[in-house]
Amino acid sequence: MGGDFAPANVVAGALDAMQESGERFSILLVGQREKIQQELNKRSREHTCAVVDAREIVTMDDAPNAALKTKKDSSITVGITLHRDGKADAFVSAGNTGAVMSASTLILGRLGEIGRPTIGALIPTEQTPCLLVDAGANVDSRPRHLFEFGVMGSVYVSSMLGNSNPRVGMLSIGEEDSKGNEVSLEALRLLRGSRLNFVGNVEGGDILKGKVDVAVCDGFVGNILLKFGESIPPFLKAKFTAYAKNSLLNALVTLIARRGMRTIMSELDYQEHGGVPLLGVNGVSIIGHGRSTPKAIKNMIYRAEEMVIRNVNAHIQEAILSYA
Amino acid sequence: MGGDFAPANVVAGALDAMQESGERFSILLVGQREKIQQELNKRSREHTCAVVDAREIVTMDDAPNAALKTKKDSSITVGITLHRDGKADAFVSAGNTGAVMSASTLILGRLGEIGRPTIGALIPTEQTPCLLVDAGANVDSRPRHLFEFGVMGSVYVSSMLGNSNPRVGMLSIGEEDSKGNEVSLEALRLLRGSRLNFVGNVEGGDILKGKVDVAVCDGFVGNILLKFGESIPPFLKAKFTAYAKNSLLNALVTLIARRGMRTIMSELDYQEHGGVPLLGVNGVSIIGHGRSTPKAIKNMIYRAEEMVIRNVNAHIQEAILSYA
Repeated sequence: MGGDFAPANVVAGALDAMQESGERFSILLVGQREKIQQELNKRSREHTCAVVDAREIVTMDDAPNAALKTKKDSSITVGITLHRDGKADAFVSAGNTGAVMSASTLILGRLGEIGRPTIGALIPTEQTPCLLVDAGANVDSRPRHLFEFGVMGSVYVSSMLGNSNPRVGMLSIGEEDSKGNEVSLEALRLLRGSRLNFVGNVEGGDILKGKVDVAVCDGFVGNILLKFGESIPPFLKAKFTAYAKNSLLNALVTLIARRGMRTIMSELDYQEHGGVPLLGVNGVSIIGHGRSTPKAIKNMIYRAEEMVIRNVNAHIQEAILSYA
Repeated sequence: MGGDFAPANVVAGALDAMQESGERFSILLVGQREKIQQELNKRSREHTCAVVDAREIVTMDDAPNAALKTKKDSSITVGITLHRDGKADAFVSAGNTGAVMSASTLILGRLGEIGRPTIGALIPTEQTPCLLVDAGANVDSRPRHLFEFGVMGSVYVSSMLGNSNPRVGMLSIGEEDSKGNEVSLEALRLLRGSRLNFVGNVEGGDILKGKVDVAVCDGFVGNILLKFGESIPPFLKAKFTAYAKNSLLNALVTLIARRGMRTIMSELDYQEHGGVPLLGVNGVSIIGHGRSTPKAIKNMIYRAEEMVIRNVNAHIQEAILSYA
């Protein structure tokens, strides 16, 4: 029920996933029954989803603890509880990110040995995508947390992207081991001592070059970087529009180039790829943009399914224990 | 003598500046006399620069304190000392950033009341450029330092860009006053209490939108963000090249679009705009990329001249005292 286009886009994305996948899974839609039913009625009855009623709505402006404290009958709380109780294998939401994170962590609990769950976001690069961990779940992380982000990120990339030996880098302000801040320098030491395929410090300019498969940072840095990256396509669009207005020739060039631009920009449109996983909780919780399209919702559902099938959490637990 | 194309690009840029400006200033070229003379000899004698001999070279791999400890006869140390002694009104270098910063701070000293000098980097936006402070001079900054970055950034933008009331924002992970890390939250409080035109927290996605004229952050965040931004043009170029290779039509589209792309990319090419100022030292010190082109060097010289003419340091001192 959260998100900017709820429940319309969520219902549409869920039905698309059911149809495209040939119903290889089932979906419980959690929220205000009548509103969900209304959206379901707009589509053919060939594929459908069960509805679980939840009366309250956590808005985008609610505090992160709203789902747990004041809105216990919200789609977030009810949905995650269904997952905890084994009535669902995964949880997917386009609602309030902080609320989903906090409710997931508290209701599902953390995986053993994990100090802080993290959000990993895939960023397109010149080569294969790079997972940025933490992309915004934690601020003021301690070195041990950054180390865990590296382990969880490495497991996620190897389990989900078929890269058996992901290169992990510590995001910093220079390549030398002496470069960094207090926390990153200590995390660097922990990561160097691990059995990860750790390449050392990487700089901000190394991400798009595809120099690492996992870039480790505190969520304060990761969130700012991720949102900066997401603002590149609209920025370029504005620049091209201004350029086109300069002359008839420019307008013509821009018109012809539009096709190529669109293809390249769609690659940069992070949200089209659908949601980010919350890693380190005892379950599968995928968080999407508030403005998720049906396509993004569909992709989030596929991602959740894949995390279950590939047993990512078991691999994380194993890795944390063996690297600890 | 530092930088990737020294002294060729430095000499060429200096002569270009002399010629273009009609010699409204004079330039002392500091470094190995014979190498500089060789470059000077390649050009017409109509415009020339004095040469001050300095035998040592701080390389890009030297430690930041090299200019002061082991290479006291380097172009960096000799040049900054000329400035301190009043034999030059400003110092410009494309050498080792850390060495220039550290030598500038120690030889020139800090402006009264300033805890930590900062580097401000202009980032292109959909509207007027945004000054990112700190862009990499400091890590583990304290709240008071971030506050000073905001004051210095605001003064720089108002003095140099003719914006009399710059909007200053605290770079954070959400717009609400409750969002941030320990240091940013306390800095937010200091900035809120100041007489700056402070708009509160801004997110990573707000920079390119042009929502603020000054974005305040710790140098760890600023450096990563700046380098990420600098890597966008080569990334897009790689994507367009890959797109062009897909089909003959794509190749044709890319060929036609190249003109527009180049115009837009040159705007994104931060280094073309020439150097970043070190703010908060008792002097004018402009630091350029190691790979600075003659054009970048020329622009750095103009920027230094303008900082002197516009009396930026006096304004910073005044502002810090009145805002303290």
